[in-house]
Amino acid sequence: MPKLWNETIEAHRAAVRDATLDAAAALVAEHGLTGITMSRLAGATGIGRATLYKYFPDVDAVLHAWHERHVGRHLTHLTQLRDRPGAPADRLTAVLSAYAAMARHGHDGAVAAALHRGAHVTGAHQQLSALVQGLIADAAGAGQVRTDVPAAELAGYCLHALSAATTLTSEAAVRRLVAVTVSGLRPPA
Amino acid sequence: MPKLWNETIEAHRAAVRDATLDAAAALVAEHGLTGITMSRLAGATGIGRATLYKYFPDVDAVLHAWHERHVGRHLTHLTQLRDRPGAPADRLTAVLSAYAAMARHGHDGAVAAALHRGAHVTGAHQQLSALVQGLIADAAGAGQVRTDVPAAELAGYCLHALSAATTLTSEAAVRRLVAVTVSGLRPPA
Repeated sequence: MPKLWNETIEAHRAAVRDATLDAAAALVAEHGLTGITMSRLAGATGIGRATLYKYFPDVDAVLHAWHERHVGRHLTHLTQLRDRPGAPADRLTAVLSAYAAMARHGHDGAVAAALHRGAHVTGAHQQLSALVQGLIADAAGAGQVRTDVPAAELAGYCLHALSAATTLTSEAAVRRLVAVTVSGLRPPA
Repeated sequence: MPKLWNETIEAHRAAVRDATLDAAAALVAEHGLTGITMSRLAGATGIGRATLYKYFPDVDAVLHAWHERHVGRHLTHLTQLRDRPGAPADRLTAVLSAYAAMARHGHDGAVAAALHRGAHVTGAHQQLSALVQGLIADAAGAGQVRTDVPAAELAGYCLHALSAATTLTSEAAVRRLVAVTVSGLRPPA
């Protein structure tokens, strides 16, 4: 059982929840989506099954909570990249590169199809679009991105183009995809 | 009942099949995917139900046959655009423009999700990728497309980027998307 020295009940609950989601991720990695059960999960976390059921009604709820946390962490990382110092175009490239890397690693078919139906995914995608659109608008204001196409359309172009990363098998290919995508954003000669 | 003056049984069958698929498309457009039944289809084509069942075992088979024909026609159209006279880069832009227009019109969620599982879609997508990749290689050979990225990767980039057309609501926006996508293909300055 994980050692929980936290002072408040809320912090304790958050820690149990986090440990459960970590264990779920490890079980899915080892056994696949169908190999995870509430009993196995209780065993892996060292929490009693009765306690586990107070946190999550079923395996599906665990997986969705895990995915929500996973997506949230990705968004936090992209937001940090956006907020670094530097020219908007450089920060845009950093965000797009990180997104492409996530797209490449994040989507093995069955898991993605099962998890991507959640409402949190729609919300996260809207936040992602807004983040990229804002950076594009900043870079366009600085003369580094074309202004003949609305920033919202350019953001849609970027995110769709970079979803090609799911089909790529090397980091070098992902870097090339990002370079090609970004060059489509440049002001026309 | 459609008038069938064709000379051979095969031509007759093909005509009945085509008329059935036309009627299916019209019924889906009018009533949606769930509003189509074998009885309605028989009524719309003027074919007896017993005859209809000799052609198609159920509504699902009709819809898949319709979609297969639909996808096949799109591929034929794109192949014709590829085979026109002209510089490879111009023919590439023509093919990508036509594909983007198809992507915009072709995908209302429920219908697409129900139909896109078929094996014919995978085959069609491979043919489409090969077609675009070939044109890109030709245009690269003519110095009109970048050569620092493999043609297969550039084809994947194009098709993913243009799938953003599904989110666009005007033809002008689709033209802008094609222009942005194509500009990503240009040789780096």
